[in-house]
Amino acid sequence: MKVGIAQINAVVGDFPGNAKRLLQAYRECLEKGAELVVSPEMGLVGYPPRDLVFKSQFVPKCLQALDYLASEIREVPFLVGYVDHHESDQPGKPFRNGAAWLENGEVRARRWKTLLPTYDVFDERRYFEPSERCEPIEWNGRKFGVTICEDIWTDDYLDRPFYRRDPVRELKAAGADLILNLSASPFHLGKPEQREEMLASVAREAGLPLVYCNAIGAQDQLVFDGHSLVVGGDGEVLARLGGFEESCEVWNLRQDAAATACGRMPQPPCEQLWRALVLGLRDYVTKTGFETVCLGLSGGIDSALTAAVAAEALGPDKVHGLTMPSPYSSGGSVSDSFALAETLGIRCDEVRISEIFEEVKSTMAPLFVGEDEDVTEENMQARIRGLLLMSLSNKFNHLLLTTGNKSELAVGYCTIYGDMCGGLAVISDLPKTRVYDVCRWLNREREIIPWNTIDKPPSAELRPDQKDQDSLPEYDVLDGILEAYVEKHLSTDEIVGLGYEEDLVRWVQRRVDLNEWKRQQAAPGIRVTSKAFGMGRRMPIVQRFTG
Amino acid sequence: MKVGIAQINAVVGDFPGNAKRLLQAYRECLEKGAELVVSPEMGLVGYPPRDLVFKSQFVPKCLQALDYLASEIREVPFLVGYVDHHESDQPGKPFRNGAAWLENGEVRARRWKTLLPTYDVFDERRYFEPSERCEPIEWNGRKFGVTICEDIWTDDYLDRPFYRRDPVRELKAAGADLILNLSASPFHLGKPEQREEMLASVAREAGLPLVYCNAIGAQDQLVFDGHSLVVGGDGEVLARLGGFEESCEVWNLRQDAAATACGRMPQPPCEQLWRALVLGLRDYVTKTGFETVCLGLSGGIDSALTAAVAAEALGPDKVHGLTMPSPYSSGGSVSDSFALAETLGIRCDEVRISEIFEEVKSTMAPLFVGEDEDVTEENMQARIRGLLLMSLSNKFNHLLLTTGNKSELAVGYCTIYGDMCGGLAVISDLPKTRVYDVCRWLNREREIIPWNTIDKPPSAELRPDQKDQDSLPEYDVLDGILEAYVEKHLSTDEIVGLGYEEDLVRWVQRRVDLNEWKRQQAAPGIRVTSKAFGMGRRMPIVQRFTG
Repeated sequence: MKVGIAQINAVVGDFPGNAKRLLQAYRECLEKGAELVVSPEMGLVGYPPRDLVFKSQFVPKCLQALDYLASEIREVPFLVGYVDHHESDQPGKPFRNGAAWLENGEVRARRWKTLLPTYDVFDERRYFEPSERCEPIEWNGRKFGVTICEDIWTDDYLDRPFYRRDPVRELKAAGADLILNLSASPFHLGKPEQREEMLASVAREAGLPLVYCNAIGAQDQLVFDGHSLVVGGDGEVLARLGGFEESCEVWNLRQDAAATACGRMPQPPCEQLWRALVLGLRDYVTKTGFETVCLGLSGGIDSALTAAVAAEALGPDKVHGLTMPSPYSSGGSVSDSFALAETLGIRCDEVRISEIFEEVKSTMAPLFVGEDEDVTEENMQARIRGLLLMSLSNKFNHLLLTTGNKSELAVGYCTIYGDMCGGLAVISDLPKTRVYDVCRWLNREREIIPWNTIDKPPSAELRPDQKDQDSLPEYDVLDGILEAYVEKHLSTDEIVGLGYEEDLVRWVQRRVDLNEWKRQQAAPGIRVTSKAFGMGRRMPIVQRFTG
Repeated sequence: MKVGIAQINAVVGDFPGNAKRLLQAYRECLEKGAELVVSPEMGLVGYPPRDLVFKSQFVPKCLQALDYLASEIREVPFLVGYVDHHESDQPGKPFRNGAAWLENGEVRARRWKTLLPTYDVFDERRYFEPSERCEPIEWNGRKFGVTICEDIWTDDYLDRPFYRRDPVRELKAAGADLILNLSASPFHLGKPEQREEMLASVAREAGLPLVYCNAIGAQDQLVFDGHSLVVGGDGEVLARLGGFEESCEVWNLRQDAAATACGRMPQPPCEQLWRALVLGLRDYVTKTGFETVCLGLSGGIDSALTAAVAAEALGPDKVHGLTMPSPYSSGGSVSDSFALAETLGIRCDEVRISEIFEEVKSTMAPLFVGEDEDVTEENMQARIRGLLLMSLSNKFNHLLLTTGNKSELAVGYCTIYGDMCGGLAVISDLPKTRVYDVCRWLNREREIIPWNTIDKPPSAELRPDQKDQDSLPEYDVLDGILEAYVEKHLSTDEIVGLGYEEDLVRWVQRRVDLNEWKRQQAAPGIRVTSKAFGMGRRMPIVQRFTG
């Protein structure tokens, strides 16, 4: 049997657009000979719709779109992810995360998601009621075990089993001879490899072949990376679809020559990160209806990488850089910015902030009599830059990109309403050491990021001769502590046990905790690690826990 | 039997402080003759701890604090809310939302919360595993049915039953002759009355008396209002504790003369709102360790009310106002600000923004050649004010309060990084019409908010002769549409059916949707309605649903 995989990019809430895209992909699979086509979790809806599902016409309009889609389907079945009502006479949540089997102009069967992830970035128990039982769908003498995303994530990949039920086991017991999975599984570094291992292990344990269709495209903070798969009942990967791009492929499950049609393995880490950022930026900008972006260029590595991602995602003519030297800026601040603009082919303008800075200081002088200059004046400079960038954004309808990295954001080494201004934080989930890695990888063939930008000591340039390492530990040390504290939730003692100095560990922990208020006002960032700041990390601002 | 209710104010994660506060309250109840003392849900932890529970030492330290607390308890039992591990050999979530029965130096019994709210501001399925069964705790010949918050919220108050289990019924079937409830039930307007009705109905249906201890105090966006209750098995309210304040009271359950010890009914709406805002502001400021606040005074009603709340919460000497007229400001902008400062007794300073504004315009002029002035220049003014206020905040360690109301925030009639700057959005959940109501109520005896501020037409004063109603519908119309759209999730047709004009409804809906990105960078606001922007409303930024 030939199964088509429609790895498409949906937009949340765009039922007409998503239906059209699904139909195109379905027809593309038909042309390639598909006898059954599978598409991603909530492909008709976009994932995750979050509280939009509560809008009174959201599910009704989804069901209308599903009926329309069904009316366009003939004898080759199409399996489509959507959202449905939960029967109103039953207790529980109001909705179902569903898969509809479309065939001969109608919805022939519906199945509900059983395991509802409610952790990290996921909130499915907020909305959905799980299935009561898992039953295969019979068609053409076969029994298809339809599952949705989490339904096939097995316990081996978790610290403890989250769930009491196992949909694959239930389906196998009910006679399923093939597992189909509709997914919207977001990317983080290493996830494509982890997913492939996990799917192979599920298929092998069940002894059933598995067809896995993942979404691609970005939605707010999440990037869906595709990498759809076909795995044999022995756990062998039979086919791979590409990552970070739409793709429609058809696979003959009876065919033996596995290797021939098998796509390449997931890319090395820096390439994964780069492609995730490019897709994340492109989808955020274009799906919100912007055409161009602007950003501040400091001559430093963060703004350089952000500009490079933007130029790749949108084209260099859509990117407008602004360099804004102050009295404390090095010469390199301007010259490295123009050098970068040159290699990327983006526009760069220069404006000075000194006059505004002096005017702000003299305006506040009557209130600051007798006070020394301090961080106030550093923040003023960052905020003047934010003000100028926002005026550029307002005047020309550019989306302003903010350029901070994860290490800075973690310890609050950034100015709220200053360099934190912007609609999208492109690299806010990249630790500083990763920023260097990606830039060096990017320069592997030719100089895209000026080597001078990569090699000079990082500096905020907000006071004379300032360097990041006047205020912060070396970045490899800082990032090590941050990974232990932010991503792994380790305690002071446990982090010290990894070989870090106790006072420093406490200082970093305190800075992370104290700066929660800033992060809760930060622009959404593109998630590329397993624990990003943002929707997947929900810390109180007011709290006194230490440890 | 005499039951003590320890209605205390906990700080999230402050185990030593919370243990101390619980012990004080316990002893106060002992002195009043209590034979059993009940305290709020997670009283030892503070509610909600959110992702802090994932920190490796969070639950261990909580358990240490519980053991310490137990060691201080003699023969009068103390029922304390805390967080525990879920047994690690069982599938499911890692934690339990628990109640510990402390007696004679030890934890004699533990009970788990059964119904785990996962909607609006609540995320309990993210963390906790529900109880497997509900069993009373026997003591002194009685059987106590211990429940935690949601466990007693019955279906009558929901559109549909959320849950399949009913802990009160289970406990009654197991012989309970009294229901105890530990709560952390957040305030919104009308909630105290709703809660009282609901508790009366639960007690009546079960035919059992009910002792209800709610938390008080604010935690980030939430305000817990107390209003603990004792209800007889016939549904009669026997005792009420105060709202928005700590309180320890002891009630003799065998006593008949109900009326004597019964506190007053919940206050009228404006008083509830006022007290919630005052508590919300005071706890946010003091629990984060600030001593003073600053804010911009525009001469308008929003900043006036915010200043009044701050002066009441912290004392007028802790509040620093700044009035920042521009060339487009009315004379009243400054004079009304000083009049307000006079009646409140707060400091007010004046600085002009014109010179900075001119300097910003001339800096950007080379890039803006041939462009007309537009909203860019309006936003510049708001952002210069934000910059000056943040410099005041930085220099003197004031927490900056932002002053926008819910109607503005809904439609984006506010400048991000401008008037949206601040650590706490005091009235961001008050629709503009409610702002007027509260100000008039505040002036019921004497002029606290200058009447001129209340009576003049609202204006952002960012261009000559600008009035809010040049850009927005009348506020009573706007607030009506917003309530239907934001709080009730109604569709265009449904809102038009309420009597609003279709184009206007669509315009408001579109503005609400387009400004989601601004709200996700807004300061946390104090929640006082049933659907606030913030943690209880989780909308995607990127989305194309209309309807």
